[in-house]
Amino acid sequence: MAKEITPRSEDYSQWYIDIVKKAQLAENSAVRGCMVIKPYGYAIWENMQAQLDRMFKETGHKNAYFPLFIPKSFLSKEAEHVEGFAKECAVVTHHRLMNDPNGKGVVVDPDARLEEELIVRPTSETIIWNTYRDWIQSYRDLPLLINQWANVVRWEMRTRLFLRTAEFLWQEGHTAHATREEAIEEARLMQRVYAQFAEEWMAMPVLRGVKTANERFAGAEETYTIEALMQDGKALQAGTSHFLGQNFAKAFDVKFLNEQNQEAYVWATSWGVSTRLIGGLVMTHSDDNGLVLPPKLAPVKVVIVPIPKPRPEIDEVAHRLMRELQERGLTVEYDTDMKKRPGFKFAEHEMRGIPVRLGIGMRDLEKHQVEVARRDTGEKTFVPIEGVVDHVIALLDDIQHNLFQRALKFREEHTTRVDTFDEFKEVLETKGGFVLAHWDGTTETELRIKELTKATIRCIPNDVEEEPGKCILTGKPSKYRVVFAKAY
Amino acid sequence: MAKEITPRSEDYSQWYIDIVKKAQLAENSAVRGCMVIKPYGYAIWENMQAQLDRMFKETGHKNAYFPLFIPKSFLSKEAEHVEGFAKECAVVTHHRLMNDPNGKGVVVDPDARLEEELIVRPTSETIIWNTYRDWIQSYRDLPLLINQWANVVRWEMRTRLFLRTAEFLWQEGHTAHATREEAIEEARLMQRVYAQFAEEWMAMPVLRGVKTANERFAGAEETYTIEALMQDGKALQAGTSHFLGQNFAKAFDVKFLNEQNQEAYVWATSWGVSTRLIGGLVMTHSDDNGLVLPPKLAPVKVVIVPIPKPRPEIDEVAHRLMRELQERGLTVEYDTDMKKRPGFKFAEHEMRGIPVRLGIGMRDLEKHQVEVARRDTGEKTFVPIEGVVDHVIALLDDIQHNLFQRALKFREEHTTRVDTFDEFKEVLETKGGFVLAHWDGTTETELRIKELTKATIRCIPNDVEEEPGKCILTGKPSKYRVVFAKAY
Repeated sequence: MAKEITPRSEDYSQWYIDIVKKAQLAENSAVRGCMVIKPYGYAIWENMQAQLDRMFKETGHKNAYFPLFIPKSFLSKEAEHVEGFAKECAVVTHHRLMNDPNGKGVVVDPDARLEEELIVRPTSETIIWNTYRDWIQSYRDLPLLINQWANVVRWEMRTRLFLRTAEFLWQEGHTAHATREEAIEEARLMQRVYAQFAEEWMAMPVLRGVKTANERFAGAEETYTIEALMQDGKALQAGTSHFLGQNFAKAFDVKFLNEQNQEAYVWATSWGVSTRLIGGLVMTHSDDNGLVLPPKLAPVKVVIVPIPKPRPEIDEVAHRLMRELQERGLTVEYDTDMKKRPGFKFAEHEMRGIPVRLGIGMRDLEKHQVEVARRDTGEKTFVPIEGVVDHVIALLDDIQHNLFQRALKFREEHTTRVDTFDEFKEVLETKGGFVLAHWDGTTETELRIKELTKATIRCIPNDVEEEPGKCILTGKPSKYRVVFAKAY
Repeated sequence: MAKEITPRSEDYSQWYIDIVKKAQLAENSAVRGCMVIKPYGYAIWENMQAQLDRMFKETGHKNAYFPLFIPKSFLSKEAEHVEGFAKECAVVTHHRLMNDPNGKGVVVDPDARLEEELIVRPTSETIIWNTYRDWIQSYRDLPLLINQWANVVRWEMRTRLFLRTAEFLWQEGHTAHATREEAIEEARLMQRVYAQFAEEWMAMPVLRGVKTANERFAGAEETYTIEALMQDGKALQAGTSHFLGQNFAKAFDVKFLNEQNQEAYVWATSWGVSTRLIGGLVMTHSDDNGLVLPPKLAPVKVVIVPIPKPRPEIDEVAHRLMRELQERGLTVEYDTDMKKRPGFKFAEHEMRGIPVRLGIGMRDLEKHQVEVARRDTGEKTFVPIEGVVDHVIALLDDIQHNLFQRALKFREEHTTRVDTFDEFKEVLETKGGFVLAHWDGTTETELRIKELTKATIRCIPNDVEEEPGKCILTGKPSKYRVVFAKAY
C-alpha cells in the first residue's frame, strides 16, 4: 500500500495528493473545484473544530449563523473589499427550474430571474455588518463577539484538495468594539489563539506577524497572520485575523452612542481558519509511508494488531487493553480482519497516521509483553503488559512533543538571513524556507521581488528586532528584516 | 417586556413570531427567505446537534461533507426526485462579477457563464449517490453509514422563521446496504433515534408512523415520520427517515458484488432533521410570558438574581452556588446588572426560558434560604441554602419530565376518533389536533379531503391496530384508522 505513494523527494505535489487520497481524507467531486471530505478527513476536522470552538468560547465568543447568500450590491459597499472578493464567485441568478419543453431533463426557467443577483458568500463581512446595524445602538451592546462555522465559495481556477478549493469549510469571527484599541487587542488575541492551536494541537510551529499593505485582507487596516513552513520549504498562511478599522461600520452605517452620549462608528475585526489547516497538517508531519498525525488531533489514537491473527488468548488481552485505554479517554481500534496479514495491516495503519500500534503475538504473551510501535519515528519497543496503558499515554504525549520539535528544527534549519539579492535568489532556489531580508517598505519593491523570484513577504514578525540595513533589491534603507518565502 | 408578546389565544402565529424575535432566537435577513440565527437560538441548535451527533455515532454513523452544488443534470436522473426537488431552487449560472462598465458597482460578467448550471443543494441524494458509485464495489464496503451536517436551500415563497425558510441547517444521513431488509431496518432505526431525541431531549411527544404514497419523499419507497402536535392543534412533521429502495442506486449505477460474487444494485436510506425542530420546540412548550425550554436543551439552566441588587453578602452566596452548580455540569448566570429591577429581570429570564431562577435577598440570607422559581409552572418555593444545589438538580429533572407529560396530556386531549365526515370537519374546526379516522386508501380520496378541509394524513401509525371500518368520505371499506391533521 505504502508503495503507491510517490516519494516526497521525487514529486512533493504528487506525494501530497497521494497521501490525501490514500489516507482517505478527501477526493475531488463531480463539481469543478469542490471536494468531498471523506469520513476520516472529516473526523480530523471535527477534532480541530471542537478544540477551536472551546478556545473561542473561553475567550468570550458565541456562535451564530448568517445567510449563505449575499445581495450583489452589498459587495460593492466597501471599496477595497469589492476588489478583493467580488470577482471569482458563484452567482445565483434564477430561483426555478422547469421541464425542458424541447425534450428530457430540466432547464432554467427564464421567468424566474432574480431582481438582484445573489452571491454565494466568499466571506461574510458585508451581510454580517448589514445585520449588526440593527444589533448595535449603544456602548452597552459592545463588544459583540460572534463566530460562525460555515461553508464559503471562491471560484478558484487551479484547485488542490484542502489547500485551495472552490468550496471550503471554515469559521469566521466577526466582532464589533467601541474603541480602536479594543478592536486591535481582539485581532491580536485571536492571532494568539490561532498560534496556540497550531502549535499545541497541530504540533505545527508558526511565525506570528503582520502582513504588508499589499498582502492584507481586502478591507482591513491590519492583517495579523500565522505562517507555517511546509516540508518542501514553502510557506503556508495558516490563519489570519484582521483589524478592519471602521471600514465596514462606515460602509454599512453602524453607529453607537458611547458613554458620553456621542454617536460614533463601531470598530471591527474578523478572523478565520479553514479546512486548509488539514492540508497544512498533512504537509508538516507526513512521510513516505503516509499520514503522520499529532495524537491530539488523531481520530484513532491506538490500533491493536493480533499477530498473526486473532485467537482467544490474544483477544482477551486486546480487549482488556482496549477497555483500559478507552477508560483513559482514548479511541482505540482492534484490527481483527482475518483476511489481511500483519505486515499489510501495519502499512495500512501507517498510511492512516495512527500514532501508536500495539502488536500482540503468542510469544509476546508468554513473555507478558506487547510490541509498541510509534508512527512518528517508526521505533518499536517491547513493554510489559501491566505497564502498557501508562506507557501508551506517556508515549502519545511524547509523540505530540516530538512532532512539534521536529517541525521546529526543520523550520530553524530552513530559516536563512541574507543580505544580498544574489544570496536571496540562491537560498530560494536551493533550500527554500523562510528568508529574512531587508526591504525598503514599498509595495513596488515587494511586487518586483515577487515577479523576479515568486517569493512574497509572508509577514513582518510581531517580535521583529530593529536592525538598520539596506533593501536587498534597491539598497534603500530598511529598519528591520521581514520574512520572505515562496508560498502556497 | 412580556407585555410585548401577543397572547397565544389572540393570534397564535404572531405569538410564535414574537417569541422567536423577543427571545432573540432568530430574525429575518436582508436576503429573502433566509434567516439569521442569533447566538441564543444557535446555542439551542448546538445542544441539539451535540446530542443527535452522539446518537448517530452510537448507532455506527460517521460524518462526512459533500459539495454545496449539484450539477443540474444530476437532479433529472431520478424521475420522482426531479419532480419533488428540481423546481424552486437557487440556480448558479455564472462564476464571475465585473465592474459595471456603465457606472458604479458590479455586474455579472456575461463571459463567465457556466457550461452547466449548478443547483444549490435542496437535499444531497444525487451528489452523494454519484460519489458512492466509486466507494462501493463489494459487500465488504457495505453498509456505508454516513451523515452530513449542512445548509440546504429550497426556494420557498412563504417563509416563517425556523418552520419554513429558504436556507436552513440540517443533517442528512445517507446509507447504503446490501439487502432490502437491512435498509428498511436502518430507516426504522433512525425513526426510533429521532423519536427518542424528540421525546427525551425536546420533551416533545411524537407519533411514529409511515407516510402515505402521496406524502412520501420524492424518490422514496417508504417514508417513516415522527409527527408532533403544536399548541394550536396543528401537526408538525419533525423528522423523516426514508427507505429509498434501489432508486438512487439505479439512477447513479451503484452496484456491488455480493458474497455470491453476483452483481446487484445497492439499497439506500436517507433521513434528516433540521432547524425546524427549534420551531417545534418553541410551539410545544412556550407560553404568554415567553420561551419555555426543556432543561436538557436550555443553553442556560439556572439564573441567579440578587434582590434587589448585588451586595457583598449576596454575591458571596451567589458565587458559591454558581461554582457548585457549575461543578455539577450546569451553565449558570448571575445577573448583576445594576440598572434593572428584579421584576424586569424576572420577565427577561422568563422570556428566554431559563428553566430555574434563584432569587437571593438579605431577608432570605437571614433565614438561610433562597427563593427557587421554576419556569414551566411559575411555582416558587423557599429552599435552605445547604440543600439548594441538590434541589435544583432534581428540579431540572422534574421540569424536563413535567414538560413532556404536559405536552403528552395536551396531545391526548387533542386526539379524537371520528366516524363521519361531519364530525371530522367539526373537530378540525373547533379543537383541531390529531383526528383518527377511516380512509379508503386512495390518493384521490386523500387529496379530496385535503381540498375540503386542509387536513392531510400525517401518518399511518407504526402500531396501528386492525379495525375494520368505512372511509369517512367515500364509505368504502378501510382496515384501520389513519391520523389526519392540519399541519405546518
